[in-house]
Amino acid sequence: MTTTLAQFGSSEYAVRNTCKVALLGFGTVGSSVARLLGARSGEHGLRLTHVYNRDVARKRVDWTPPDVTWTADIDEVLSSDVDVVVELLGGLRPAHDWVRCALRSRKSVVTANKQLIAHFGSQLLHQAQTEQQFLGFGACVAGGVPVLSGLQDGLAGDRLIQVRGILNGTCNYILTKIEKAGASFSEALAEAQQAGFAESDPTDDIDGLDAGAKLAILARVGLNAELRPQHVRCHSIRQVAAIDFGYAAELGCTIRQISTVKRIQRQIYAEVGPALVAKNSPLACLSGSQNIVVSSGEFGGDTVFSGHGAGGNPTAVAVVSDLLQAARHRANSVERHDPAASSCEVMGDPEVQQYVRFVVRDRPGILASLAAAFSRHDINVDAVLQKPGYSKSKLPFVMTLESCRKSRLTAALAEIGRFDFLEEIPLSLPILKEGPCDAFAL
Amino acid sequence: MTTTLAQFGSSEYAVRNTCKVALLGFGTVGSSVARLLGARSGEHGLRLTHVYNRDVARKRVDWTPPDVTWTADIDEVLSSDVDVVVELLGGLRPAHDWVRCALRSRKSVVTANKQLIAHFGSQLLHQAQTEQQFLGFGACVAGGVPVLSGLQDGLAGDRLIQVRGILNGTCNYILTKIEKAGASFSEALAEAQQAGFAESDPTDDIDGLDAGAKLAILARVGLNAELRPQHVRCHSIRQVAAIDFGYAAELGCTIRQISTVKRIQRQIYAEVGPALVAKNSPLACLSGSQNIVVSSGEFGGDTVFSGHGAGGNPTAVAVVSDLLQAARHRANSVERHDPAASSCEVMGDPEVQQYVRFVVRDRPGILASLAAAFSRHDINVDAVLQKPGYSKSKLPFVMTLESCRKSRLTAALAEIGRFDFLEEIPLSLPILKEGPCDAFAL
Repeated sequence: MTTTLAQFGSSEYAVRNTCKVALLGFGTVGSSVARLLGARSGEHGLRLTHVYNRDVARKRVDWTPPDVTWTADIDEVLSSDVDVVVELLGGLRPAHDWVRCALRSRKSVVTANKQLIAHFGSQLLHQAQTEQQFLGFGACVAGGVPVLSGLQDGLAGDRLIQVRGILNGTCNYILTKIEKAGASFSEALAEAQQAGFAESDPTDDIDGLDAGAKLAILARVGLNAELRPQHVRCHSIRQVAAIDFGYAAELGCTIRQISTVKRIQRQIYAEVGPALVAKNSPLACLSGSQNIVVSSGEFGGDTVFSGHGAGGNPTAVAVVSDLLQAARHRANSVERHDPAASSCEVMGDPEVQQYVRFVVRDRPGILASLAAAFSRHDINVDAVLQKPGYSKSKLPFVMTLESCRKSRLTAALAEIGRFDFLEEIPLSLPILKEGPCDAFAL
Repeated sequence: MTTTLAQFGSSEYAVRNTCKVALLGFGTVGSSVARLLGARSGEHGLRLTHVYNRDVARKRVDWTPPDVTWTADIDEVLSSDVDVVVELLGGLRPAHDWVRCALRSRKSVVTANKQLIAHFGSQLLHQAQTEQQFLGFGACVAGGVPVLSGLQDGLAGDRLIQVRGILNGTCNYILTKIEKAGASFSEALAEAQQAGFAESDPTDDIDGLDAGAKLAILARVGLNAELRPQHVRCHSIRQVAAIDFGYAAELGCTIRQISTVKRIQRQIYAEVGPALVAKNSPLACLSGSQNIVVSSGEFGGDTVFSGHGAGGNPTAVAVVSDLLQAARHRANSVERHDPAASSCEVMGDPEVQQYVRFVVRDRPGILASLAAAFSRHDINVDAVLQKPGYSKSKLPFVMTLESCRKSRLTAALAEIGRFDFLEEIPLSLPILKEGPCDAFAL
């Protein structure tokens, strides 16, 4: 069954003019941004025109558009006609000066630099407003998880009283390692370093400074509180040992590096450090290097955001999302929806594993009849499950089937429906399992 | 420790002119919107000026601003100078005509009407664009969970290939009831109706039409696919029985009403119905009437949004968030950040339960010494945990403390630090438990 439908550009913005983009820094995130812009060129009005890197000869690649200017001279970028500068240098110097200079040159700025925004966000937002430029920093917190836009836009109508989360993947990796393998802190750290999940100097991650900078940004966006990173109380995870997970388990808890900022009337409390959290809380269930943020609103209650908090591609998604907003800002367009429709088809026949529950009047040969019917439709039976203790006159059992097209299952069930041993119409349910795009074992 | 900080208006928009708001419909959501606007008046530029309801005399309340016009005549609203009309009538008629009429009168529209947007979203967005008005519908899907803004803005840079979720709280309530209490479908439904979680005619919820309309909206916003609600394959949960949960458990799964829309090249597949999902998936962990959406992007992987999917206040948060965007649209302002700062304080001394792990050279009287020290600082010991099998010369054990101020704990630990039986500096960790604002047992 296919029906022609109209396609609808919602995230493809009606940006009339091309928006010229410069990348400052071409490491993991920078090259992911360039790849994403390339993969989606034509879908949006963003065009990569400049790449700055200190050692540009070593960084240069051959797969960007041929007219991209590669340079080690920042002035060449800042004096050009680029519309948006993407700052991926990290650190405060020279990033701070260059971002200010870009805004002064009436360019919009998108940054993934959490320290820059945690320390100078207020000043830079003020400057951006004065220069009527867009300043985007969605990539600074939780990488690809759209928590800043969620707090800014989707929950703007609420009054948030707390934002809590796991904001540092390195700590989550190390603590999970200590918990699961009974490793010591230093063993777990060494493993994380070998696996590329921790840097050679892990201080910022382990002692909470990295999460603290992200928390300062969350405080500003979610709680309207200008919180300086140095006012976040940071506690190290260095002292946490395997035995603490044993005791925590006795209390129904596990231990995670938790970042919390809370508003109590006109006071703000902000803390990062290891804490006991209930085993059944979403904070405890987070795996590996993922990030999670739970916001608590006075009116809307708790809202959870989680996903990939780091890595080139997820961070690049956040950067490009901000670039699309910057482009709309420059085009002076607030439209997020483009009602122009192109066509796509509705597909009705996916392949999926199936659960089929029968209720029968038992007699010999039923399984053979059913298996033969499925086989006539090229459907393989995976397993048969039968719980004991049911009457033979109304006996329920289940067959699970290997992946097959739904149309085929429907045909097989139509044939099976004529069998006289059925007490009820069989119930078929899809079994939704982990796929390549499903990290969550759905 | 208190430090004066600047407060930062991020969700408090710099809306220069007051934006006049009319409510069409004053049921649960309508009165929540009015309360929320009242509670936050002065913080934003939104002013409630009109309330329309068919039986307005019965609906009228005394706690809205005295100058609000209450009317049963829609023309009085549509011919007034209101800036934004909030449509909370539900259903297609007369909502469709009135929304078109409002847009034609150059008013922006915010709606929580999923059927209206699922059926006529494309047409209405086109009309809004033509009239240069804002059309907001964040409240149509998952109530207070900001999933539409997350997909539209935060994940705009990705190319989404699937959106899956639990979009109907009634089904989740009924299926959880069957699972937990071994109830039959009709028993669970009757209970849901008594508890106010299901309507007297529950067809739309149970047979998937409600979730199907939401899925059509998610398809448009997340996958750019114009999907008509009638193209969503809907399967009822009526046939699911307690025994199916038993068999599902043997397969490591549970059963939930799952909505999925998936893009495979230029084809779209959309389905709502009961399905087996892995017990450890976030879909299986959702409790009660909450909603969850998991988006899968080609670049950013899986992102999870969850929270309160229904109810007056969460839905009102979504409506007011859209109103704030409408106000910015009308003020022709794209600024989400107001760098103007007011002051708040950083608080350093919250009350929290504590876990304290000691490592000691064992000898009689240690517990008494520690308990006495805590007692001198007015701290109550909650429990003592000690795992067997450790050497007496390096014996670890844990004391949990009742909620106390951190400053008091620090003072007690300073005193305890002088005891000569300590082998290591004690490790103290906060125990983060469920609070009144924490539905997730954090």
